[in-house]
Amino acid sequence: MDTLGIIVNGATGRMGHRQHLVRSLVAIINQGGVPMPDGSRVQLDLVLVGRNEAKLAAAAAENGLENWTTDLDSVLNDPRYPVYFDPLSTSLRHDTLKRAIAAGKAIYTEKPTAETFEQAVELARLAEEAKVPNGVVHDKLYLPGLLKLRRLIDDGFFGEILSVRGEFGYWVFEGDTIPAQRPSWNYRSEDGGGIVADMFCHWNYVIENLFGSISSVYAKTATHIPTRWDEKGQAYTATADDAAYAIFELANGTIVQMNSSWDVRVNRDELVEFQVDGTKGSAVVGLFGCKIQPRDITPRPTWNPDIPDEHDYRADWVEVPDNTVFDNGFKAQWEEFIRSLVLGEKYPYDLLAGARGVRLAETGLASSAQGRRIELPPLTSVDQAEAAVAPAVAKAL
Amino acid sequence: MDTLGIIVNGATGRMGHRQHLVRSLVAIINQGGVPMPDGSRVQLDLVLVGRNEAKLAAAAAENGLENWTTDLDSVLNDPRYPVYFDPLSTSLRHDTLKRAIAAGKAIYTEKPTAETFEQAVELARLAEEAKVPNGVVHDKLYLPGLLKLRRLIDDGFFGEILSVRGEFGYWVFEGDTIPAQRPSWNYRSEDGGGIVADMFCHWNYVIENLFGSISSVYAKTATHIPTRWDEKGQAYTATADDAAYAIFELANGTIVQMNSSWDVRVNRDELVEFQVDGTKGSAVVGLFGCKIQPRDITPRPTWNPDIPDEHDYRADWVEVPDNTVFDNGFKAQWEEFIRSLVLGEKYPYDLLAGARGVRLAETGLASSAQGRRIELPPLTSVDQAEAAVAPAVAKAL
Amino acid sequence: MDTLGIIVNGATGRMGHRQHLVRSLVAIINQGGVPMPDGSRVQLDLVLVGRNEAKLAAAAAENGLENWTTDLDSVLNDPRYPVYFDPLSTSLRHDTLKRAIAAGKAIYTEKPTAETFEQAVELARLAEEAKVPNGVVHDKLYLPGLLKLRRLIDDGFFGEILSVRGEFGYWVFEGDTIPAQRPSWNYRSEDGGGIVADMFCHWNYVIENLFGSISSVYAKTATHIPTRWDEKGQAYTATADDAAYAIFELANGTIVQMNSSWDVRVNRDELVEFQVDGTKGSAVVGLFGCKIQPRDITPRPTWNPDIPDEHDYRADWVEVPDNTVFDNGFKAQWEEFIRSLVLGEKYPYDLLAGARGVRLAETGLASSAQGRRIELPPLTSVDQAEAAVAPAVAKAL
Amino acid sequence: MDTLGIIVNGATGRMGHRQHLVRSLVAIINQGGVPMPDGSRVQLDLVLVGRNEAKLAAAAAENGLENWTTDLDSVLNDPRYPVYFDPLSTSLRHDTLKRAIAAGKAIYTEKPTAETFEQAVELARLAEEAKVPNGVVHDKLYLPGLLKLRRLIDDGFFGEILSVRGEFGYWVFEGDTIPAQRPSWNYRSEDGGGIVADMFCHWNYVIENLFGSISSVYAKTATHIPTRWDEKGQAYTATADDAAYAIFELANGTIVQMNSSWDVRVNRDELVEFQVDGTKGSAVVGLFGCKIQPRDITPRPTWNPDIPDEHDYRADWVEVPDNTVFDNGFKAQWEEFIRSLVLGEKYPYDLLAGARGVRLAETGLASSAQGRRIELPPLTSVDQAEAAVAPAVAKAL
Repeated sequence: MDTLGIIVNGATGRMGHRQHLVRSLVAIINQGGVPMPDGSRVQLDLVLVGRNEAKLAAAAAENGLENWTTDLDSVLNDPRYPVYFDPLSTSLRHDTLKRAIAAGKAIYTEKPTAETFEQAVELARLAEEAKVPNGVVHDKLYLPGLLKLRRLIDDGFFGEILSVRGEFGYWVFEGDTIPAQRPSWNYRSEDGGGIVADMFCHWNYVIENLFGSISSVYAKTATHIPTRWDEKGQAYTATADDAAYAIFELANGTIVQMNSSWDVRVNRDELVEFQVDGTKGSAVVGLFGCKIQPRDITPRPTWNPDIPDEHDYRADWVEVPDNTVFDNGFKAQWEEFIRSLVLGEKYPYDLLAGARGVRLAETGLASSAQGRRIELPPLTSVDQAEAAVAPAVAKAL
Repeated sequence: MDTLGIIVNGATGRMGHRQHLVRSLVAIINQGGVPMPDGSRVQLDLVLVGRNEAKLAAAAAENGLENWTTDLDSVLNDPRYPVYFDPLSTSLRHDTLKRAIAAGKAIYTEKPTAETFEQAVELARLAEEAKVPNGVVHDKLYLPGLLKLRRLIDDGFFGEILSVRGEFGYWVFEGDTIPAQRPSWNYRSEDGGGIVADMFCHWNYVIENLFGSISSVYAKTATHIPTRWDEKGQAYTATADDAAYAIFELANGTIVQMNSSWDVRVNRDELVEFQVDGTKGSAVVGLFGCKIQPRDITPRPTWNPDIPDEHDYRADWVEVPDNTVFDNGFKAQWEEFIRSLVLGEKYPYDLLAGARGVRLAETGLASSAQGRRIELPPLTSVDQAEAAVAPAVAKAL
Repeated sequence: MDTLGIIVNGATGRMGHRQHLVRSLVAIINQGGVPMPDGSRVQLDLVLVGRNEAKLAAAAAENGLENWTTDLDSVLNDPRYPVYFDPLSTSLRHDTLKRAIAAGKAIYTEKPTAETFEQAVELARLAEEAKVPNGVVHDKLYLPGLLKLRRLIDDGFFGEILSVRGEFGYWVFEGDTIPAQRPSWNYRSEDGGGIVADMFCHWNYVIENLFGSISSVYAKTATHIPTRWDEKGQAYTATADDAAYAIFELANGTIVQMNSSWDVRVNRDELVEFQVDGTKGSAVVGLFGCKIQPRDITPRPTWNPDIPDEHDYRADWVEVPDNTVFDNGFKAQWEEFIRSLVLGEKYPYDLLAGARGVRLAETGLASSAQGRRIELPPLTSVDQAEAAVAPAVAKAL
Repeated sequence: MDTLGIIVNGATGRMGHRQHLVRSLVAIINQGGVPMPDGSRVQLDLVLVGRNEAKLAAAAAENGLENWTTDLDSVLNDPRYPVYFDPLSTSLRHDTLKRAIAAGKAIYTEKPTAETFEQAVELARLAEEAKVPNGVVHDKLYLPGLLKLRRLIDDGFFGEILSVRGEFGYWVFEGDTIPAQRPSWNYRSEDGGGIVADMFCHWNYVIENLFGSISSVYAKTATHIPTRWDEKGQAYTATADDAAYAIFELANGTIVQMNSSWDVRVNRDELVEFQVDGTKGSAVVGLFGCKIQPRDITPRPTWNPDIPDEHDYRADWVEVPDNTVFDNGFKAQWEEFIRSLVLGEKYPYDLLAGARGVRLAETGLASSAQGRRIELPPLTSVDQAEAAVAPAVAKAL
């Protein structure tokens, strides 16, 4: 059995530890490695990297691992570990990824891949020049609701998809009488906060992989709640956007209207839901649930506003069964990335995809500030991306 | 008891006959007139006007009325009828209203008040110069759901209103296998069709009377379904917008995100629903229903996308009881208009309000064509309105 | 890290041991001390005081403590322990608190602070003269139900609060066939028993801190069950009140009608419940639960006594979620008191508040005996309190 | 078959028409008269009296009656009608009852029997001197819930009854956003309004017939909502009491704590409920429902305020089945009164009982004004009543 060495940086942070180390990489080791098309398996050899020796030793011990270090350079120079994984906070990512690329490592990284579109493109260029394979986490695509949506699309269920409505959000308490359930930096733009920065990189990969590439964006952001209370109960001024109302046009003509808000009370089945309407049928999809209304059970209402309408519209939808077992999404994507790496295939969710996500957030904020729709030219090569950097930066002012 | 003479033009058309004649004016006559604050009543004396003698005679007989004519001028010159009512199609309205104003009649009219903003403003100016009282139908405001929403607002239920989400629409069949449930002219711009022209004058008065005046609009319209089949089963090309995705900003900072579509399947309790979110609570309101979630029962979800969330978010809402009997909305507004007329009070839903509605539709179309947010300066006097005509027309190209 | 020395007298009694020692003070030690606003922590150093050496040694050992003594004077004179805590029985409290004040200790004490209003005021005066910080246990205020009520009040949920109905009580068995679940001294006035003495000091702090200060009291007490059986199965005559029906008027006009009874069967969700009615909404609150009915879902019943009313009134209430984790109430108040002490801030629930509680009980009994409403002048300074002692004692006969 | 002639005055008013004429007297006629103990039946011969000939004729025709008149004197002098019934408004009652008594008629009347205790006693005296049988409506006693309570009392279910808690009330809307569901005169003392005047005459007969005669009253009244809106939407100042918090002591030692309010939201099964606690068991009784908790299923809770109590106290109560068919209460009392009249037996619910009801209201208001408990001496003869008039009037100021 082949073995693949992976450097896991930031293995004791929240995302790095729980989602990637415990529930993905260690789970793969415990199941005997990644199954390959030819029936063989690729086992993993992990080295944990971090700053705190005690935490690293504990994380290694808990997970039955032996190797850890506080010296990133030592493992970047170690040929036993050809893969570098980065779940660090966004502000640290650009520098460490550049070092890993320079060391010739294959890259797998959390998103956003950088704080600015320009930096994100730079990473894609460096990786291309260094010819290192690379992948970016696209975890939502692997959740049961979106996998069932993928299946509907592949089945041709929708006919032509006309439009998508997305609603994401819930009520984040201000923190005075009830503690806020998100950290206060999320509400300060000077600390990298804002719902656009947080969510638009998700919306980009969800939309482009399910519905088509985005050709323009209009967004209106708001800071609906100007005063919040922080972790210590101190009032502070919210400077970042806490809601964004966006209209994305896709190259294929589909329109995606997407609301994101931390100031909305939930009148849905899940915290995020997408309604997809097509000529042959519609679906309402959450992270886990998926219900559909085929054309042939669609009701034919007439608009008589002065007469109560007794029709039960919610009963016109039918739930789509799982019909399979969905593995943990983070783990499923890890296996997919590793297989592409071992087989030498190009991985589609790469640093260029990551750069498109960063561009969508940056351009959304610019659109809101300028009050206009902004075109998003295609970005399928690094050359296109570099050409797009200058105007995008200009747009963003 | 005083009696008020009213000219009912187009009394045999769909809107004119059922909503206005039978369910409003004749119902008022049968109840003994309009009750006044001093306890007296004002009875109505109607004369029906139309083009078809047989239909007029039948409509009069069915409703126990005696007076009808095909000669509009004769009654416009008859001092026994000081009020002129117009539910004709929009293309005829401008001319007939001008004649009625010239004859010194008080005006009550369906909306849109004209086909263009310029003509709508002209009507407001003529009425002001002629000093004739005037009113425009704002029927949705009188429906139970919106009346309960009004009550919530007046009670201060929402605290500060932050945002409103509106969803209007349903699936209008293309007409091939299943007959379309709307007339084909609705889908041809050359015939005055389009969902923006149809609905934005409604959204304007609903928004400005419940949430505040609109200060800017961004809209993206679409013709999602390019081919439809008409009343005779003939295929035709849809040239008008059949969906519009809009973001309205209000002068008070509230944001209204409003989707209108004839190409959407209904995942709601009613064909139109507004979700209103405020600091102290939220409501979801249809034409008849109204449910709320006060701040103090708001759940505090955390966003863990990889774990199914068992919370039943729909159960966090409670229905608002009627607690009163709501009269037919068209009739209720007729009584209100007549009382203001008899008492000599200014009526707030006037031809200027009608012009604001027409402006919103015209500007919405311009915004979509130009890909930018368009500001809507205040329009609380005819002078302001006339000043706004030229640039608005320019914007619309 | 700073350390604060606390003398825990009566640490082996029921209240002293479980609520204060184990669940509050030792829990604070185990969590690493009391968190301060600046991020630092204040750790505790306890010395247990009692009469029984074996019990003290056992209590210390069980809780990982080292210091205990039977000699109160030795620790009152020991500068390492600046705080004295007293959960002893009420009859012993006056003397020991006087000694602790004389020794210059900060005071934290259970309630009632004394057996008579006069003694309670004397303690407040002595503490003021000696300039020792002081606090009185107000534990009910820290229970989840009342904390959620506090949140509703702070949110302005009620509009103006009009009235409060309180029901406290349950059936205490007489002790013949089924053993009584309370000690027999509770039913003998000569032993300090009576439901007024037991509960009115609670009602005083609950009411004044949630609804406003009490300006008058009317009470009717009763000894509904004249014969009970004691711990040894011997019949005895109940001489103390076992029920009290009270009407409190608050300075702000709110009326609080409060029943307390050991002779009532429970038709409620909890043993104590308060219904609060305000112009904008109502709540029903227990020690843990809290449900509300906002104005806008309030039904509009009509009174037709001869027709069964099918409306489900209980379904008009919705439960308020916790939305936070509530710490043990006794511990939460300890932390609050210690913080105020270390920061040198005035603590609001002080010996004067304790004296107001004792006054309410004493005046309640006088009202019942005299058959009249008794005014309660404001008591916000020790001078006012001393002036009120003489007439209050006179009233009490 | 004997026939009894009855003068029905005010037969077209709300109470007179529906409850007494249609559902009681005409129903008795239609069933063939009042069944007597010996198996015979007494049929009724009604004459309707009123002021409006058209209404009288219509009421007679609808109910298959022949006799009506606008001339009260003519029927008071007609020996065919030995019984006079009076459901007029309270302000008219004193005079017409005096005329009927002077004419020697037997009296049956709605309550309150007069506007003042003095007038109510005068009527009792006049009736006694004239030796005319007399009865007062006590309708609540005949409702299913109270009949089942009566059965429990007669069965000795409660052992000794210790206390009664009564809650009556609901939220009467102010009339601004939602129309008030009671007439505005109810809230103006100058028009005879107030909840004490409205309800205390009911509480008097319910209490004295189920639990024992009332020996003292303490009441605190309030006008919680000072501004309301009348039938025309005009704001007015509420001058009458809209809530009353009362404590009644009974001659047998039972205490009745009774809240009446038009400003309370309903957390009960019915708009009025009485909880009765006795040594052997308790009951919670509404107008229709009745549930009990016998001593032997009574739980034995302990009071541990800091630990959630999982016991379901509401599940400890069991519903009492009807086990019989309850006739309409108004009709049942009519039959009872007629039987006593025909058999020449003294009727217990007489004008003296009516005077006790008026006294309770008058004294309740005086108690609230004076801030003291007021004794109510026994009132079982007209002599006692007259002796009580002077001090009662004095008390009321």
